[in-house]
Amino acid sequence: MTPIITLTTDFGLKDYFVGTLKGTIYKELSDAKIVDISHDISPFNIQECAYILENAYKHFPEGTIHIVGVDSEPTPENQHIAVLVNGHYFVSANNGVIGLITSEVQPEKVVELNIPNPSHGSFPVLDVFVQVACHIARGGTLEVVGKPFDGLKELREFAPSATDNGNKIIGSVIYIDNYGNVVTNIHRNYFEAYRKGRDFELNARTTKIKKIHNKYSDIINFDLERSQRKGAGDLLALFNSAGYVQLSIYKSDLNTVGGASTLLGLDYRDTVTISFV
Amino acid sequence: MTPIITLTTDFGLKDYFVGTLKGTIYKELSDAKIVDISHDISPFNIQECAYILENAYKHFPEGTIHIVGVDSEPTPENQHIAVLVNGHYFVSANNGVIGLITSEVQPEKVVELNIPNPSHGSFPVLDVFVQVACHIARGGTLEVVGKPFDGLKELREFAPSATDNGNKIIGSVIYIDNYGNVVTNIHRNYFEAYRKGRDFELNARTTKIKKIHNKYSDIINFDLERSQRKGAGDLLALFNSAGYVQLSIYKSDLNTVGGASTLLGLDYRDTVTISFV
Amino acid sequence: MTPIITLTTDFGLKDYFVGTLKGTIYKELSDAKIVDISHDISPFNIQECAYILENAYKHFPEGTIHIVGVDSEPTPENQHIAVLVNGHYFVSANNGVIGLITSEVQPEKVVELNIPNPSHGSFPVLDVFVQVACHIARGGTLEVVGKPFDGLKELREFAPSATDNGNKIIGSVIYIDNYGNVVTNIHRNYFEAYRKGRDFELNARTTKIKKIHNKYSDIINFDLERSQRKGAGDLLALFNSAGYVQLSIYKSDLNTVGGASTLLGLDYRDTVTISFV
Repeated sequence: MTPIITLTTDFGLKDYFVGTLKGTIYKELSDAKIVDISHDISPFNIQECAYILENAYKHFPEGTIHIVGVDSEPTPENQHIAVLVNGHYFVSANNGVIGLITSEVQPEKVVELNIPNPSHGSFPVLDVFVQVACHIARGGTLEVVGKPFDGLKELREFAPSATDNGNKIIGSVIYIDNYGNVVTNIHRNYFEAYRKGRDFELNARTTKIKKIHNKYSDIINFDLERSQRKGAGDLLALFNSAGYVQLSIYKSDLNTVGGASTLLGLDYRDTVTISFV
Repeated sequence: MTPIITLTTDFGLKDYFVGTLKGTIYKELSDAKIVDISHDISPFNIQECAYILENAYKHFPEGTIHIVGVDSEPTPENQHIAVLVNGHYFVSANNGVIGLITSEVQPEKVVELNIPNPSHGSFPVLDVFVQVACHIARGGTLEVVGKPFDGLKELREFAPSATDNGNKIIGSVIYIDNYGNVVTNIHRNYFEAYRKGRDFELNARTTKIKKIHNKYSDIINFDLERSQRKGAGDLLALFNSAGYVQLSIYKSDLNTVGGASTLLGLDYRDTVTISFV
Repeated sequence: MTPIITLTTDFGLKDYFVGTLKGTIYKELSDAKIVDISHDISPFNIQECAYILENAYKHFPEGTIHIVGVDSEPTPENQHIAVLVNGHYFVSANNGVIGLITSEVQPEKVVELNIPNPSHGSFPVLDVFVQVACHIARGGTLEVVGKPFDGLKELREFAPSATDNGNKIIGSVIYIDNYGNVVTNIHRNYFEAYRKGRDFELNARTTKIKKIHNKYSDIINFDLERSQRKGAGDLLALFNSAGYVQLSIYKSDLNTVGGASTLLGLDYRDTVTISFV
């Protein structure tokens, strides 16, 4: 069975870019199965792309081929690469996106692609990545399209740090989601490793929180009358479905009343700390 | 042949959410056929979701399985359900969305799902709904995944009402579409039932209209010279393709000159009345 | 093998429109392969639709059927047509979109559809175009669904013009892309035909440029230290992947610092000239 090819890009959905990629793939592989992960990555935002790809790719079947179309123009410092890691293939520029994935799981193979980008070539995802993805989908090996490469870039500034003898975690906002939820780079595993069962206080600008929930509705006491309960508009922190600490307004709508981002005045790259006591 | 699985959510298209659902479905059912109905439902907007799903689902083949990912966290008052109605399966929370569909057609089966939501579970669409949809797609029965349920919530405030001995219909705006068209909850069937051949006046804020068209171009008299015709920028009411009364600006563009919504000052939930004379 | 059916519309992705089209196609053709080119064409923007479709369709396999859902209501001046050109089928209203494609390649067949639009019919893409596309996909001929037609509309105001004895090209902005790049209607072929090896100056409002690159990174001298290089934020002109002259800000993000459109004060329809010296 032909493996799935996924697309994660900052191309947006309006342009001819995405249709062009799909048409070309179907021309090469008439029984291709193409799945969009996202085309709405903020332009050139490597961290955002890494966060979204990292949390989507694991749910696909092994053998899936993931094309990453963000900051993909080849330069001496931004090589075209293909990586086999955790049973999945990635075709990308060496811009750090794959670094988040390989920071968790050792890659099995990393190659620098030797498919030349055409000189009239401002669309390398079409001219190079699609060809490589179709090659892999037909059962081709990475060795045929590239040579071993050991310069895989790390994803900078993604990980939080711990200070004060492990009594404080310093993290940052890595993503604002569709509901205005503020997603930090502090993963549950990292948090628990430093927490060691202690109480804590999370601080983000003027917000202070002392509990992190597992579900949004955990803040509601259904034994109370409706009028006395917490509910829409109340603030909470929770571990989101990707495992990261997230600040949320219960049932927020970014388009109307606003979400945690606007209401707490928190934006991409802002600092979030957790102090253990 | 594997049935189609559709997705209707308020997840947006940027995040890892939709890709994750699709990857997981393909892992369970390698020959799945997945169709997006919409991922741009306004967050937690049950009425909007119901309107969009109601008018899309009927066009799919019988046996299609529709996953509804809006306000899906299970609580004592928001049970997880699966419903067979009109030959289609729906997997949803009991939040009212399915109520619009079952107000038209008696459901054949309604079950409350007995698949537990994981305790670390802020993503029940992935953890529960996808599993149930794949179970149904493989030919499984609703009885295996749930128990009979008779508390299906109705969709509140969706239907218009008639007053003044049937001489007046009081409706409201339920949706603003991509062109800025103002869609009301007054369906052609409801309108005709009260109209009984009479003249009428539609009122919406300062707008008064005495005719409802069947097509946009009905307002244009093609026998006139171009310069003397009505055309782009002119107001009309028509029955939209879903059968609802809609106020439109001919060839409007919400991004430039504006559509009926901005030009008439009408928004979601505003009142629209029709008086028969 | 069933041919691909593509969709290019101004319906947006929120509404029931696109889901309805897909459900109906799958009802007619259970093994259909449907690909979205774009649903985010600016409402009724024929030039934008033509630009996007023209640059996407060529990459699909021959025999693909392209449905165009922009300004599709039939009127005496906007007939429903089907066209076979360059091995591809198009089902559209005669609004000029296909005119850009047939200005490059002579169409093999043009028919006016004889499928009547229903009288209660504000959704002709569903009621007419989908039926015709499925007919073609099943191997049906254009002759069965239409009669020969020779009134194919040209796409107005799309082409640039040359003045001053071929010493000056007068073009305009036809598209602003997802990155804020300003795309002109001046194609590389047109430019080179008049250039004849001469130097030139491109003028757009207050912007003057004397070089057109082939790739974004062409402006960067990688032999210099990072701090001394050009880079993010610098202006360049290049031939985009569709071959058109485009003004760009290197690594711009329209959502944050802005792209060429906002920074240069250039918008859709603005004039761009190139003078040869």
